Amino acid sequence: MKIALDAMGGDKAPLEIVKGAVLAAQTYGVEIALVGPSEIVGPELKKYGHPKGISVVEAGEAIHMQEDEIVKAVRSRRDASINVAHHLVRDGEAQALVSAGNTGAVMASAITVLGRIRGIERPAVATLLPYNEGRVLLLDIGANPECKPSYLVQFAQMGSVYMEKVIGIVNPRVALLNIGEESVKGNDLTKEAYERLTDSNVNFIGNIEGVEVHKGKAEVVVTDGFTGNIAVKVGEGLADYILEQVSAVVKSSPFFIAASLLMRPALRKALKRLQYEEYGGAYLLGVNGVVVIAHGRADASAIMNAVRVAKIAAESGLIETMRESLGHHAHAEATAT
Amino acid sequence: MKIALDAMGGDKAPLEIVKGAVLAAQTYGVEIALVGPSEIVGPELKKYGHPKGISVVEAGEAIHMQEDEIVKAVRSRRDASINVAHHLVRDGEAQALVSAGNTGAVMASAITVLGRIRGIERPAVATLLPYNEGRVLLLDIGANPECKPSYLVQFAQMGSVYMEKVIGIVNPRVALLNIGEESVKGNDLTKEAYERLTDSNVNFIGNIEGVEVHKGKAEVVVTDGFTGNIAVKVGEGLADYILEQVSAVVKSSPFFIAASLLMRPALRKALKRLQYEEYGGAYLLGVNGVVVIAHGRADASAIMNAVRVAKIAAESGLIETMRESLGHHAHAEATAT
Repeated sequence: MKIALDAMGGDKAPLEIVKGAVLAAQTYGVEIALVGPSEIVGPELKKYGHPKGISVVEAGEAIHMQEDEIVKAVRSRRDASINVAHHLVRDGEAQALVSAGNTGAVMASAITVLGRIRGIERPAVATLLPYNEGRVLLLDIGANPECKPSYLVQFAQMGSVYMEKVIGIVNPRVALLNIGEESVKGNDLTKEAYERLTDSNVNFIGNIEGVEVHKGKAEVVVTDGFTGNIAVKVGEGLADYILEQVSAVVKSSPFFIAASLLMRPALRKALKRLQYEEYGGAYLLGVNGVVVIAHGRADASAIMNAVRVAKIAAESGLIETMRESLGHHAHAEATAT
Repeated sequence: MKIALDAMGGDKAPLEIVKGAVLAAQTYGVEIALVGPSEIVGPELKKYGHPKGISVVEAGEAIHMQEDEIVKAVRSRRDASINVAHHLVRDGEAQALVSAGNTGAVMASAITVLGRIRGIERPAVATLLPYNEGRVLLLDIGANPECKPSYLVQFAQMGSVYMEKVIGIVNPRVALLNIGEESVKGNDLTKEAYERLTDSNVNFIGNIEGVEVHKGKAEVVVTDGFTGNIAVKVGEGLADYILEQVSAVVKSSPFFIAASLLMRPALRKALKRLQYEEYGGAYLLGVNGVVVIAHGRADASAIMNAVRVAKIAAESGLIETMRESLGHHAHAEATAT
């Protein structure tokens, strides 16, 4: 098992990326191809001696661009680290890719180099969110700010395959994120998507409101990339706010500080599932390969987790199952019409 | 100052509504017109003796309907408590209205009875969210699942007047909720709204991402009613999740329980700004009157806070200022074209 790791993507590249690669190789016994300029990545890697299982694959710098120019930049710069990393996956030299680089660049490169899975109009970015002892997959969280109803059905299908193959949930429940439970609620997109999801092959349980997402009503929640992105990021800011408020109270008295020191390990354990470091990042679903997009602020520990997540997905046969079930479904639909 | 209170709206009507009226009259020295069937409301009120400043105004039951029938129901049932309450405001017998009833019914009734403020195409529902020591007004959070760019400009104008007049913030900063900071980011709605907000008379500071909402980058954040509703409700569910996790840790050891008992008052004070009870609910902006929509689950304490919020808004001259500034703006636009 070899993971292609974009050494140049992310706010803390290449230092934390290289450190994360070393940790991941040690901890999970995977091989890692660090993709980037060897004159930059080589000396970084040397700090750790000659760690087993890590190689450097020569590539250019990361793509730093204004959003509106990014697709053009990805296509014109074949030597960019993210493109070289995707080529390793396409050519079977690596079984999965991890990058903490610009999401738009990762997507554009994945679509260009790996291509879309047959039957998928638009790949989507998915993220796992916590509830009590379980997890819910929310998608799309940013790849497609404008969606057609058919995209949402495909998101539901891809999300279902992911939860079955990677997380091990049989026949996952799928819900449509909406502003009310009734089928007539929402905007034009959700009304049409509701009908299509009802007729689809996923285990569709209907609409759920925002307040239900973290309560485990469904294992897969689909929405357009605009709404999904806002929802996840407002939640991220709110969680920061709550933890800051609690922290300010704790620091307000020496006794509270002492008490909280004792509580801290238990609290940290309870709340760590909120942190992106734990999840390793988001998943780009719908392309011909396992692609994990780590958070832009990812440090070594987050990169290590992203490698773990990529390894699990690659071992699960996710892509093969997606090709079979979605290709089959696309074929059935084409035959029916 | 008299507040019309819909005695029949909300999950806990009429018991908690009547109790909230009694508390509010005692605490804030306002008069309250409890609107509902006197054979139901009268006996409830009698439990508290003959509390000063509270009268009962005869009306029928609340409107309980499927969403798609609600506008028709509001128009056909003139005696419904929400309609009678709005008539009190229209006729100057009350200076503000509070209801914990169905948001769709409150809106339909307000628009029918009070009418829209000149220059406003669509009223919006707004809510205050916390950040450190400040508050940000987010709108629309559910009145308009489909929006035109012009609505978002009007939301920005109404939100600015609200923050100036009611909260006392001079020249509030307005931001557009989006999936990135660059003006080209987002969907068709946000791209067009960005241009129009730049050309408008509000203090527009540009796009902000979801993670910035609770960080105080702007005092007014505008979005369409679909996205706003999902964002607020996902946040509500996430806050529940975090507090449950913390609570489970605290309960896991007798020492933690003891420590948390001591910390509780400070924690409660820090976190109470998260709770809808504190805010009194949401505001319907853009109609000719002060309308506060309390949470459907509102108890007496939440109703009391809703009355307080309604009183402050009515005293602030919010509606008069909105009529002047928006009417003026609409006039200027009409002259310009």
